[in-house]
Amino acid sequence: MILEYLQKQVDFFNKKIGDFIPSGEPKILFDAMRYSLTAGGKRIRPILVVESAKSVKPGIDINTFIEIPVACEFIHTYSLIHDDLPAMDDDDFRRGKPTCHKVFGEAMAILAGDGLLTHAFNLISLNKFLESEKLIRIINILSEKVGIYGMVAGQAADMDKNFRDVEFIHTHKTAKFIEACCEIGGVIGSADESQIKYLRDYGYAIGMAFQIWDDVLDEIGEEEKLGKKAHKDKEKDKITYPLVYGVERSKEMARNYVEKAITSLKDIPNRDILVNIAKFIISREV
Amino acid sequence: MILEYLQKQVDFFNKKIGDFIPSGEPKILFDAMRYSLTAGGKRIRPILVVESAKSVKPGIDINTFIEIPVACEFIHTYSLIHDDLPAMDDDDFRRGKPTCHKVFGEAMAILAGDGLLTHAFNLISLNKFLESEKLIRIINILSEKVGIYGMVAGQAADMDKNFRDVEFIHTHKTAKFIEACCEIGGVIGSADESQIKYLRDYGYAIGMAFQIWDDVLDEIGEEEKLGKKAHKDKEKDKITYPLVYGVERSKEMARNYVEKAITSLKDIPNRDILVNIAKFIISREV
Repeated sequence: MILEYLQKQVDFFNKKIGDFIPSGEPKILFDAMRYSLTAGGKRIRPILVVESAKSVKPGIDINTFIEIPVACEFIHTYSLIHDDLPAMDDDDFRRGKPTCHKVFGEAMAILAGDGLLTHAFNLISLNKFLESEKLIRIINILSEKVGIYGMVAGQAADMDKNFRDVEFIHTHKTAKFIEACCEIGGVIGSADESQIKYLRDYGYAIGMAFQIWDDVLDEIGEEEKLGKKAHKDKEKDKITYPLVYGVERSKEMARNYVEKAITSLKDIPNRDILVNIAKFIISREV
Repeated sequence: MILEYLQKQVDFFNKKIGDFIPSGEPKILFDAMRYSLTAGGKRIRPILVVESAKSVKPGIDINTFIEIPVACEFIHTYSLIHDDLPAMDDDDFRRGKPTCHKVFGEAMAILAGDGLLTHAFNLISLNKFLESEKLIRIINILSEKVGIYGMVAGQAADMDKNFRDVEFIHTHKTAKFIEACCEIGGVIGSADESQIKYLRDYGYAIGMAFQIWDDVLDEIGEEEKLGKKAHKDKEKDKITYPLVYGVERSKEMARNYVEKAITSLKDIPNRDILVNIAKFIISREV
Protein backbone atom coordinates (compact mmCIF):
# COMPACT_ATOMS: atom_id res chain seq x y z
CA MET A 1 0.00 0.00 0.00
CA ILE A 2 2.51 2.63 1.17
CA LEU A 3 4.96 1.32 -1.41
CA GLU A 4 2.45 1.92 -4.20
CA TYR A 5 1.61 5.35 -2.82
CA LEU A 6 5.30 6.29 -2.60
CA GLN A 7 5.90 5.00 -6.13
CA LYS A 8 3.17 7.34 -7.39
CA GLN A 9 4.83 10.21 -5.55
CA VAL A 10 8.22 9.28 -7.02
CA ASP A 11 6.67 9.34 -10.51
CA PHE A 12 5.08 12.70 -9.74
CA PHE A 13 8.38 14.21 -8.60
CA ASN A 14 10.34 12.71 -11.47
CA LYS A 15 7.97 14.59 -13.75
CA LYS A 16 8.00 17.81 -11.70
CA ILE A 17 11.80 17.82 -11.42
CA GLY A 18 11.84 17.44 -15.20
CA ASP A 19 9.77 20.63 -15.48
CA PHE A 20 12.31 22.53 -13.38
CA ILE A 21 15.51 21.35 -15.08
CA PRO A 22 17.23 24.50 -16.29
CA SER A 23 18.87 24.96 -19.65
CA GLY A 24 21.49 27.41 -20.83
CA GLU A 25 25.14 27.88 -21.70
CA PRO A 26 27.66 26.32 -21.48
CA LYS A 27 25.80 23.19 -22.46
CA ILE A 28 28.10 20.78 -20.60
CA LEU A 29 27.23 22.41 -17.24
CA PHE A 30 23.51 22.02 -17.85
CA ASP A 31 23.98 18.48 -19.21
CA ALA A 32 25.83 17.55 -16.02
CA MET A 33 23.04 18.92 -13.80
CA ARG A 34 20.35 17.20 -15.88
CA TYR A 35 22.26 13.91 -15.81
CA SER A 36 22.36 13.82 -12.03
CA LEU A 37 18.85 15.21 -11.46
CA THR A 38 17.33 12.50 -13.68
CA ALA A 39 19.47 9.60 -12.42
CA GLY A 40 16.57 8.32 -10.33
CA GLY A 41 16.46 7.97 -6.57
CA LYS A 42 13.90 7.66 -3.83
CA ARG A 43 12.86 11.35 -3.86
CA ILE A 44 12.26 10.90 -0.14
CA ARG A 45 13.06 14.53 0.76
CA PRO A 46 10.52 16.21 -1.55
CA ILE A 47 7.96 13.57 -0.60
CA LEU A 48 8.48 14.40 3.09
CA VAL A 49 8.03 18.13 2.46
CA VAL A 50 4.70 17.45 0.75
CA GLU A 51 3.44 14.83 3.18
CA SER A 52 4.38 16.96 6.19
CA ALA A 53 2.47 19.90 4.71
CA LYS A 54 -0.53 17.66 4.02
CA SER A 55 -0.40 16.18 7.53
CA VAL A 56 -1.38 19.57 8.95
CA LYS A 57 -3.33 20.93 5.95
CA PRO A 58 -4.81 18.00 4.01
CA GLY A 59 -6.36 19.92 1.12
CA ILE A 60 -3.30 22.02 0.32
CA ASP A 61 -2.51 22.41 -3.39
CA ILE A 62 1.02 21.14 -4.12
CA ASN A 63 1.35 23.58 -7.01
CA THR A 64 1.31 26.50 -4.59
CA PHE A 65 4.64 25.39 -3.11
CA ILE A 66 6.16 22.97 -5.64
CA GLU A 67 9.44 24.98 -5.82
CA ILE A 68 10.25 24.03 -2.22
CA PRO A 69 10.30 20.21 -2.50
CA VAL A 70 12.01 20.50 -5.90
CA ALA A 71 14.68 22.74 -4.32
CA CYS A 72 15.24 20.09 -1.64
CA GLU A 73 15.90 17.49 -4.34
CA PHE A 74 18.29 19.90 -6.12
CA ILE A 75 20.22 20.21 -2.84
CA HIS A 76 20.22 16.45 -2.30
CA THR A 77 21.53 15.95 -5.84
CA TYR A 78 24.31 18.51 -5.33
CA SER A 79 25.36 16.73 -2.15
CA LEU A 80 25.57 13.37 -3.94
CA ILE A 81 27.65 14.83 -6.80
CA HIS A 82 30.14 16.42 -4.39
CA ASP A 83 30.24 13.37 -2.06
CA ASP A 84 31.13 11.13 -5.00
CA LEU A 85 34.13 13.25 -6.09
CA PRO A 86 37.59 11.64 -6.12
CA ALA A 87 38.73 13.92 -3.27
CA MET A 88 35.71 12.84 -1.22
CA ASP A 89 34.24 9.30 -1.33
CA ASP A 90 35.68 8.59 -4.79
CA ASP A 91 32.70 6.66 -6.12
CA ASP A 92 32.44 5.55 -9.75
CA PHE A 93 28.80 4.50 -9.62
CA ARG A 94 25.64 5.91 -8.12
CA ARG A 95 22.19 4.35 -8.58
CA GLY A 96 23.74 1.92 -11.07
CA LYS A 97 25.04 4.70 -13.36
CA PRO A 98 28.51 6.28 -13.65
CA THR A 99 28.83 9.23 -11.26
CA CYS A 100 28.70 12.80 -12.56
CA HIS A 101 32.48 13.35 -12.54
CA LYS A 102 33.06 10.05 -14.39
CA VAL A 103 30.90 11.35 -17.25
CA PHE A 104 31.58 15.12 -17.23
CA GLY A 105 34.93 15.41 -15.45
CA GLU A 106 35.73 16.70 -11.99
CA ALA A 107 35.59 20.43 -12.75
CA MET A 108 32.13 20.19 -14.28
CA ALA A 109 30.90 17.96 -11.41
CA ILE A 110 32.07 20.51 -8.82
CA LEU A 111 30.34 23.28 -10.79
CA ALA A 112 27.16 21.26 -11.38
CA GLY A 113 26.97 20.78 -7.61
CA ASP A 114 27.62 24.47 -6.93
CA GLY A 115 24.99 25.34 -9.53
CA LEU A 116 22.31 23.02 -8.13
CA LEU A 117 22.88 24.32 -4.59
CA THR A 118 22.69 27.97 -5.63
CA HIS A 119 19.71 27.38 -7.91
CA ALA A 120 17.79 25.68 -5.11
CA PHE A 121 17.66 29.02 -3.27
CA ASN A 122 16.70 30.73 -6.51
CA LEU A 123 13.76 28.33 -6.95
CA ILE A 124 12.50 29.08 -3.45
CA SER A 125 12.74 32.83 -4.13
CA LEU A 126 10.56 32.38 -7.23
CA ASN A 127 7.53 31.00 -5.36
CA LYS A 128 4.57 33.35 -5.81
CA PHE A 129 2.04 31.84 -3.38
CA LEU A 130 3.63 31.64 0.05
CA GLU A 131 4.13 34.80 2.11
CA SER A 132 7.68 36.23 2.02
CA GLU A 133 7.97 35.66 5.79
CA LYS A 134 7.39 31.93 5.22
CA LEU A 135 9.87 31.80 2.36
CA ILE A 136 12.54 33.45 4.51
CA ARG A 137 11.84 31.02 7.34
CA ILE A 138 12.12 28.11 4.87
CA ILE A 139 15.45 29.45 3.56
CA ASN A 140 16.63 29.92 7.14
CA ILE A 141 15.81 26.33 8.15
CA LEU A 142 17.19 24.79 4.97
CA SER A 143 20.44 26.80 4.81
CA GLU A 144 21.13 25.98 8.45
CA LYS A 145 20.46 22.26 8.19
CA VAL A 146 22.20 21.54 4.90
CA GLY A 147 25.03 23.96 5.73
CA ILE A 148 27.85 24.29 8.20
CA TYR A 149 25.69 23.31 11.17
CA GLY A 150 24.18 20.37 9.31
CA MET A 151 24.96 18.37 6.20
CA VAL A 152 28.26 20.06 5.28
CA ALA A 153 29.53 19.53 8.85
CA GLY A 154 28.42 15.89 8.67
CA GLN A 155 30.27 15.26 5.42
CA ALA A 156 33.36 17.05 6.80
CA ALA A 157 33.24 14.89 9.94
CA ASP A 158 32.83 11.81 7.76
CA MET A 159 35.96 12.78 5.79
CA ASP A 160 37.98 13.64 8.91
CA LYS A 161 39.60 10.38 9.95
CA ASN A 162 40.19 11.70 13.48
CA PHE A 163 36.46 12.18 13.91
CA ARG A 164 34.90 8.93 15.07
CA ASP A 165 31.56 10.02 16.55
CA VAL A 166 29.05 8.11 14.40
CA GLU A 167 26.01 9.75 16.02
CA PHE A 168 27.35 13.22 15.16
CA ILE A 169 28.08 12.15 11.61
CA HIS A 170 24.67 10.61 10.94
CA THR A 171 22.83 13.42 12.72
CA HIS A 172 24.54 16.07 10.64
CA LYS A 173 25.07 14.28 7.36
CA THR A 174 21.57 12.82 7.00
CA ALA A 175 19.10 13.48 9.81
CA LYS A 176 19.18 17.28 9.90
CA PHE A 177 18.29 17.62 6.21
CA ILE A 178 15.38 15.20 6.57
CA GLU A 179 14.35 17.01 9.74
CA ALA A 180 14.42 20.26 7.74
CA CYS A 181 12.12 18.79 5.05
CA CYS A 182 9.47 17.85 7.63
CA GLU A 183 9.81 21.14 9.53
CA ILE A 184 9.49 23.07 6.26
CA GLY A 185 6.39 21.06 5.37
CA GLY A 186 4.92 22.19 8.68
CA VAL A 187 5.74 25.84 7.91
CA ILE A 188 4.17 25.52 4.45
CA GLY A 189 1.03 23.97 5.95
CA SER A 190 0.76 26.77 8.56
CA ALA A 191 1.18 24.34 11.45
CA ASP A 192 1.35 25.89 14.91
CA GLU A 193 4.77 26.03 16.59
CA SER A 194 4.25 22.89 18.66
CA GLN A 195 3.19 20.92 15.58
CA ILE A 196 6.27 22.22 13.73
CA LYS A 197 8.37 20.91 16.61
CA TYR A 198 6.66 17.48 16.41
CA LEU A 199 7.29 17.30 12.67
CA ARG A 200 10.92 18.28 13.26
CA ASP A 201 11.32 15.54 15.90
CA TYR A 202 9.68 13.05 13.54
CA GLY A 203 12.04 14.08 10.73
CA TYR A 204 15.13 13.77 12.89
CA ALA A 205 14.12 10.32 14.10
CA ILE A 206 13.30 8.91 10.66
CA GLY A 207 16.49 10.51 9.33
CA MET A 208 18.55 8.60 11.88
CA ALA A 209 16.59 5.38 11.22
CA PHE A 210 17.09 5.86 7.48
CA GLN A 211 20.87 6.27 7.75
CA ILE A 212 21.34 3.43 10.26
CA TRP A 213 19.26 1.17 8.01
CA ASP A 214 21.44 2.19 5.05
CA ASP A 215 24.53 1.22 7.05
CA VAL A 216 22.95 -2.15 7.82
CA LEU A 217 22.01 -2.74 4.17
CA ASP A 218 25.56 -1.88 3.10
CA GLU A 219 26.86 -4.35 5.67
CA ILE A 220 24.57 -7.26 4.75
CA GLY A 221 23.47 -6.23 1.24
CA GLU A 222 24.02 -7.65 -2.17
CA GLU A 223 25.50 -5.44 -4.84
CA GLU A 224 22.89 -6.20 -7.43
CA LYS A 225 20.03 -5.01 -5.27
CA LEU A 226 21.79 -1.87 -4.02
CA GLY A 227 22.76 -0.65 -7.52
CA LYS A 228 26.16 0.20 -6.06
CA LYS A 229 28.93 -1.74 -4.41
CA ALA A 230 28.08 -3.35 -1.09
CA HIS A 231 30.54 -3.24 1.82
CA LYS A 232 31.72 0.13 0.58
CA ASP A 233 31.73 1.51 4.10
CA LYS A 234 34.17 -1.12 5.35
CA GLU A 235 36.42 -0.70 2.32
CA LYS A 236 36.59 3.03 2.92
CA ASP A 237 37.18 2.67 6.65
CA LYS A 238 33.91 4.54 7.28
CA ILE A 239 32.52 4.56 10.76
CA THR A 240 29.01 3.06 10.79
CA TYR A 241 26.44 1.85 13.30
CA PRO A 242 27.06 -1.85 12.49
CA LEU A 243 30.80 -1.26 13.00
CA VAL A 244 30.26 0.32 16.41
CA TYR A 245 27.23 -1.61 17.66
CA GLY A 246 26.94 -4.72 15.44
CA VAL A 247 24.15 -5.48 12.97
CA GLU A 248 21.50 -6.67 15.40
CA ARG A 249 21.90 -3.82 17.87
CA SER A 250 21.90 -1.34 14.94
CA LYS A 251 18.63 -2.75 13.63
CA GLU A 252 17.14 -2.37 17.09
CA MET A 253 18.34 1.24 17.29
CA ALA A 254 16.77 1.99 13.90
CA ARG A 255 13.51 0.44 15.12
CA ASN A 256 13.65 2.58 18.26
CA TYR A 257 14.07 5.72 16.18
CA VAL A 258 11.03 4.72 14.11
CA GLU A 259 9.02 4.23 17.28
CA LYS A 260 10.11 7.65 18.53
CA ALA A 261 9.19 9.15 15.17
CA ILE A 262 5.69 7.71 15.33
CA THR A 263 5.22 8.88 18.94
CA SER A 264 6.22 12.42 17.88
CA LEU A 265 3.22 12.49 15.54
CA LYS A 266 0.54 11.92 18.16
CA ASP A 267 -0.79 15.50 17.90
CA ILE A 268 -0.51 15.71 14.12
CA PRO A 269 -4.04 15.41 12.69
CA ASN A 270 -3.44 13.51 9.42
CA ARG A 271 -0.48 11.43 10.36
CA ASP A 272 -1.21 8.09 8.64
CA ILE A 273 1.10 8.46 5.64
CA LEU A 274 3.96 9.80 7.75
CA VAL A 275 3.54 6.83 10.11
CA ASN A 276 3.66 4.45 7.18
CA ILE A 277 6.74 6.14 5.72
CA ALA A 278 8.49 5.71 9.08
CA LYS A 279 7.63 2.00 9.16
CA PHE A 280 8.64 1.59 5.53
CA ILE A 281 12.15 2.91 6.19
CA ILE A 282 13.10 -0.11 8.31
CA SER A 283 11.39 -2.62 6.04
CA ARG A 284 13.52 -1.70 3.00
CA GLU A 285 15.69 -4.39 1.55
CA VAL A 286 17.32 -1.95 -0.83
CA MET B 1 41.41 60.23 -1.49
CA ILE B 2 39.29 57.37 -2.79
CA LEU B 3 42.13 54.98 -1.97
CA GLU B 4 42.14 56.14 1.65
CA TYR B 5 38.36 55.90 1.81
CA LEU B 6 38.39 52.41 0.35
CA GLN B 7 41.13 51.34 2.75
CA LYS B 8 38.92 52.43 5.66
CA GLN B 9 36.08 50.40 4.20
CA VAL B 10 38.35 47.38 3.76
CA ASP B 11 39.37 47.65 7.43
CA PHE B 12 35.72 47.97 8.44
CA PHE B 13 34.77 44.83 6.49
CA ASN B 14 37.76 42.86 7.70
CA LYS B 15 36.49 43.51 11.21
CA LYS B 16 32.83 42.82 10.36
CA ILE B 17 33.65 39.60 8.54
CA GLY B 18 35.59 38.61 11.65
CA ASP B 19 32.41 39.07 13.69
CA PHE B 20 30.49 36.73 11.38
CA ILE B 21 33.07 33.92 11.14
CA PRO B 22 31.25 30.84 12.38
CA SER B 23 32.69 28.23 14.72
CA GLY B 24 31.69 24.65 15.33
CA GLU B 25 32.58 21.02 14.70
CA PRO B 26 34.49 19.49 12.99
CA LYS B 27 37.16 22.06 13.72
CA ILE B 28 39.06 21.56 10.45
CA LEU B 29 36.01 22.66 8.39
CA PHE B 30 35.66 25.89 10.36
CA ASP B 31 39.43 26.46 10.30
CA ALA B 32 39.38 26.16 6.51
CA MET B 33 36.53 28.69 6.17
CA ARG B 34 38.23 31.11 8.58
CA TYR B 35 41.56 30.75 6.76
CA SER B 36 40.07 31.81 3.44
CA LEU B 37 37.75 34.49 4.84
CA THR B 38 40.66 36.22 6.59
CA ALA B 39 43.19 35.88 3.75
CA GLY B 40 42.70 39.53 2.79
CA GLY B 41 41.38 40.84 -0.46
CA LYS B 42 39.87 43.99 -1.84
CA ARG B 43 36.39 43.45 -0.31
CA ILE B 44 35.08 45.24 -3.38
CA ARG B 45 31.74 43.37 -3.44
CA PRO B 46 30.59 44.23 0.10
CA ILE B 47 31.85 47.79 -0.40
CA LEU B 48 29.72 48.10 -3.54
CA VAL B 49 26.62 46.83 -1.72
CA VAL B 50 27.08 49.49 0.95
CA GLU B 51 28.04 52.34 -1.38
CA SER B 52 25.13 51.56 -3.73
CA ALA B 53 22.72 51.63 -0.80
CA LYS B 54 24.20 54.92 0.40
CA SER B 55 24.05 56.42 -3.08
CA VAL B 56 20.26 56.36 -2.92
CA LYS B 57 19.85 56.64 0.87
CA PRO B 58 22.83 58.51 2.32
CA GLY B 59 22.00 58.25 6.01
CA ILE B 60 21.26 54.53 6.02
CA ASP B 61 22.67 52.61 9.00
CA ILE B 62 24.98 49.81 7.76
CA ASN B 63 24.14 47.72 10.81
CA THR B 64 20.57 47.33 9.61
CA PHE B 65 21.76 45.29 6.61
CA ILE B 66 25.31 44.19 7.43
CA GLU B 67 24.47 40.50 6.80
CA ILE B 68 23.99 41.20 3.09
CA PRO B 69 27.45 42.59 2.19
CA VAL B 70 29.06 39.98 4.46
CA ALA B 71 27.11 37.25 2.65
CA CYS B 72 28.44 38.59 -0.67
CA GLU B 73 32.01 38.25 0.62
CA PHE B 74 31.26 34.68 1.83
CA ILE B 75 30.10 33.84 -1.69
CA HIS B 76 33.14 35.48 -3.26
CA THR B 77 35.42 33.51 -0.91
CA TYR B 78 33.66 30.22 -1.77
CA SER B 79 34.15 30.94 -5.47
CA LEU B 80 37.88 31.56 -5.01
CA ILE B 81 38.33 28.33 -3.00
CA HIS B 82 36.56 26.24 -5.65
CA ASP B 83 38.27 28.03 -8.57
CA ASP B 84 41.69 27.27 -7.07
CA LEU B 85 41.05 23.50 -6.76
CA PRO B 86 43.34 21.12 -8.68
CA ALA B 87 40.41 20.05 -10.92
CA MET B 88 39.75 23.73 -11.76
CA ASP B 89 42.53 26.35 -12.06
CA ASP B 90 44.96 24.36 -9.89
CA ASP B 91 46.46 27.33 -8.07
CA ASP B 92 48.87 26.91 -5.16
CA PHE B 93 48.85 30.54 -4.06
CA ARG B 94 46.18 33.20 -3.61
CA ARG B 95 46.86 36.68 -2.23
CA GLY B 96 50.40 35.54 -1.42
CA LYS B 97 49.26 32.67 0.79
CA PRO B 98 48.90 28.94 0.05
CA THR B 99 45.40 28.19 -1.28
CA CYS B 100 42.79 26.52 0.94
CA HIS B 101 43.26 23.02 -0.51
CA LYS B 102 47.06 23.26 -0.13
CA VAL B 103 46.58 23.79 3.61
CA PHE B 104 43.46 21.75 4.40
CA GLY B 105 43.29 19.22 1.57
CA GLU B 106 40.92 19.03 -1.37
CA ALA B 107 37.95 17.47 0.43
CA MET B 108 37.93 20.13 3.12
CA ALA B 109 38.36 22.91 0.53
CA ILE B 110 35.34 21.66 -1.44
CA LEU B 111 33.31 21.50 1.78
CA ALA B 112 34.53 24.89 3.04
CA GLY B 113 33.29 26.34 -0.27
CA ASP B 114 29.97 24.53 -0.04
CA GLY B 115 29.64 25.71 3.55
CA LEU B 116 30.40 29.37 2.79
CA LEU B 117 27.92 29.39 -0.10
CA THR B 118 25.13 27.83 1.94
CA HIS B 119 25.85 29.99 4.97
CA ALA B 120 25.67 33.15 2.87
CA PHE B 121 21.95 32.48 2.33
CA ASN B 122 21.58 31.70 6.02
CA LEU B 123 23.12 35.07 6.93
CA ILE B 124 20.66 36.90 4.68
CA SER B 125 17.74 35.03 6.24
CA LEU B 126 18.89 36.18 9.70
CA ASN B 127 18.55 39.92 8.96
CA LYS B 128 15.94 41.43 11.28
CA PHE B 129 15.60 44.94 9.83
CA LEU B 130 14.74 44.65 6.15
CA GLU B 131 11.25 43.56 5.12
CA SER B 132 10.94 39.90 4.10
CA GLU B 133 9.91 40.98 0.57
CA LYS B 134 13.24 42.78 0.20
CA LEU B 135 15.19 39.83 1.59
CA ILE B 136 13.53 37.48 -0.90
CA ARG B 137 14.29 39.88 -3.74
CA ILE B 138 17.93 40.06 -2.60
CA ILE B 139 18.15 36.25 -2.48
CA ASN B 140 16.54 36.08 -5.92
CA ILE B 141 19.04 38.50 -7.48
CA LEU B 142 22.06 36.96 -5.78
CA SER B 143 21.20 33.30 -6.43
CA GLU B 144 20.56 34.10 -10.09
CA LYS B 145 23.74 36.07 -10.67
CA VAL B 146 26.19 33.86 -8.78
CA GLY B 147 24.44 30.69 -9.98
CA ILE B 148 23.82 28.81 -13.20
CA TYR B 149 22.88 31.96 -15.12
CA GLY B 150 25.84 33.89 -13.74
CA MET B 151 29.09 33.09 -11.99
CA VAL B 152 28.84 29.28 -12.09
CA ALA B 153 28.13 29.40 -15.84
CA GLY B 154 31.10 31.76 -16.28
CA GLN B 155 33.48 29.45 -14.46
CA ALA B 156 32.12 26.45 -16.41
CA ALA B 157 32.65 28.33 -19.69
CA ASP B 158 36.16 29.23 -18.54
CA MET B 159 36.92 25.53 -17.88
CA ASP B 160 35.36 24.38 -21.15
CA LYS B 161 38.19 24.52 -23.67
CA ASN B 162 35.70 24.55 -26.56
CA PHE B 163 34.16 27.72 -25.24
CA ARG B 164 36.12 30.72 -26.53
CA ASP B 165 33.69 33.64 -26.07
CA VAL B 166 35.63 35.94 -23.74
CA GLU B 167 32.77 38.41 -23.37
CA PHE B 168 30.42 35.63 -22.18
CA ILE B 169 33.04 34.38 -19.74
CA HIS B 170 33.80 37.76 -18.17
CA THR B 171 30.14 38.79 -18.13
CA HIS B 172 29.14 35.65 -16.31
CA LYS B 173 32.21 34.92 -14.21
CA THR B 174 32.74 38.43 -12.86
CA ALA B 175 30.38 41.17 -14.04
CA LYS B 176 27.05 39.63 -13.04
CA PHE B 177 28.06 39.18 -9.41
CA ILE B 178 29.30 42.79 -9.20
CA GLU B 179 26.11 43.91 -10.97
CA ALA B 180 24.14 41.97 -8.32
CA CYS B 181 25.98 43.76 -5.48
CA CYS B 182 25.04 47.19 -6.87
CA GLU B 183 21.46 46.16 -7.66
CA ILE B 184 21.08 44.73 -4.15
CA GLY B 185 22.42 47.96 -2.67
CA GLY B 186 19.66 49.76 -4.57
CA VAL B 187 17.03 47.39 -3.18
CA ILE B 188 18.35 47.86 0.36
CA GLY B 189 18.28 51.65 -0.07
CA SER B 190 14.67 51.55 -1.37
CA ALA B 191 15.71 52.99 -4.73
CA ASP B 192 12.94 53.25 -7.32
CA GLU B 193 12.96 50.72 -10.16
CA SER B 194 14.70 53.00 -12.63
CA GLN B 195 17.45 53.79 -10.12
CA ILE B 196 17.86 50.07 -9.46
CA LYS B 197 18.33 49.60 -13.19
CA TYR B 198 20.97 52.38 -13.32
CA LEU B 199 22.86 50.81 -10.42
CA ARG B 200 22.67 47.43 -12.18
CA ASP B 201 24.05 48.94 -15.40
CA TYR B 202 26.80 50.63 -13.41
CA GLY B 203 27.68 47.35 -11.69
CA TYR B 204 27.81 45.41 -14.94
CA ALA B 205 30.07 48.01 -16.57
CA ILE B 206 32.54 48.27 -13.68
CA GLY B 207 32.50 44.46 -13.39
CA MET B 208 33.61 44.18 -17.01
CA ALA B 209 36.21 46.94 -16.57
CA PHE B 210 37.48 45.23 -13.42
CA GLN B 211 37.97 41.85 -15.12
CA ILE B 212 39.51 43.29 -18.30
CA TRP B 213 41.91 45.33 -16.14
CA ASP B 214 42.80 42.15 -14.21
CA ASP B 215 43.59 40.44 -17.53
CA VAL B 216 45.82 43.37 -18.50
CA LEU B 217 47.61 43.33 -15.14
CA ASP B 218 48.21 39.61 -15.46
CA GLU B 219 49.63 40.18 -18.93
CA ILE B 220 51.96 43.03 -18.02
CA GLY B 221 52.26 42.59 -14.24
CA GLU B 222 55.07 41.65 -11.95
CA GLU B 223 54.62 38.70 -9.64
CA GLU B 224 55.74 40.52 -6.54
CA LYS B 225 53.06 43.18 -6.84
CA LEU B 226 50.24 40.77 -7.75
CA GLY B 227 50.90 38.44 -4.78
CA LYS B 228 50.39 35.58 -7.22
CA LYS B 229 52.08 34.41 -10.36
CA ALA B 230 51.90 36.76 -13.33
CA HIS B 231 51.20 35.42 -16.83
CA LYS B 232 49.06 32.71 -15.27
CA ASP B 233 46.39 33.19 -17.91
CA LYS B 234 48.78 32.46 -20.75
CA GLU B 235 50.26 29.45 -18.99
CA LYS B 236 46.79 28.00 -18.49
CA ASP B 237 45.66 28.73 -22.04
CA LYS B 238 42.96 31.03 -20.67
CA ILE B 239 41.14 33.24 -23.08
CA THR B 240 41.55 36.90 -22.08
CA TYR B 241 40.92 40.35 -23.51
CA PRO B 242 44.64 41.03 -24.18
CA LEU B 243 44.85 37.69 -26.00
CA VAL B 244 41.88 38.53 -28.24
CA TYR B 245 42.30 42.31 -28.59
CA GLY B 246 45.87 43.10 -27.45
CA VAL B 247 46.86 45.12 -24.37
CA GLU B 248 46.22 48.63 -25.70
CA ARG B 249 42.81 47.88 -27.15
CA SER B 250 41.86 46.04 -23.94
CA LYS B 251 42.81 49.05 -21.83
CA GLU B 252 40.67 51.22 -24.07
CA MET B 253 37.73 48.83 -23.72
CA ALA B 254 38.09 48.91 -19.93
CA ARG B 255 38.11 52.71 -20.05
CA ASN B 256 34.98 52.70 -22.19
CA TYR B 257 33.21 50.48 -19.67
CA VAL B 258 34.17 52.89 -16.90
CA GLU B 259 32.76 55.78 -18.91
CA LYS B 260 29.53 53.84 -19.46
CA ALA B 261 29.40 53.07 -15.75
CA ILE B 262 29.70 56.73 -14.84
CA THR B 263 27.05 57.74 -17.40
CA SER B 264 24.66 55.17 -15.88
CA LEU B 265 24.82 57.07 -12.58
CA LYS B 266 23.54 60.39 -13.87
CA ASP B 267 20.20 60.07 -12.03
CA ILE B 268 21.68 58.63 -8.84
CA PRO B 269 21.63 61.41 -6.22
CA ASN B 270 24.80 60.67 -4.23
CA ARG B 271 26.99 59.19 -6.88
CA ASP B 272 30.45 60.64 -6.06
CA ILE B 273 31.95 57.61 -4.34
CA LEU B 274 30.62 55.20 -6.97
CA VAL B 275 32.11 57.42 -9.69
CA ASN B 276 35.46 57.39 -7.93
CA ILE B 277 35.36 53.62 -7.47
CA ALA B 278 34.78 53.25 -11.22
CA LYS B 279 37.77 55.48 -11.99
CA PHE B 280 39.89 53.69 -9.42
CA ILE B 281 39.34 50.31 -11.09
CA ILE B 282 41.34 51.29 -14.16
CA SER B 283 44.05 53.08 -12.24
CA ARG B 284 45.05 49.97 -10.25
CA GLU B 285 48.57 48.71 -10.69
CA VAL B 286 47.84 45.61 -8.62
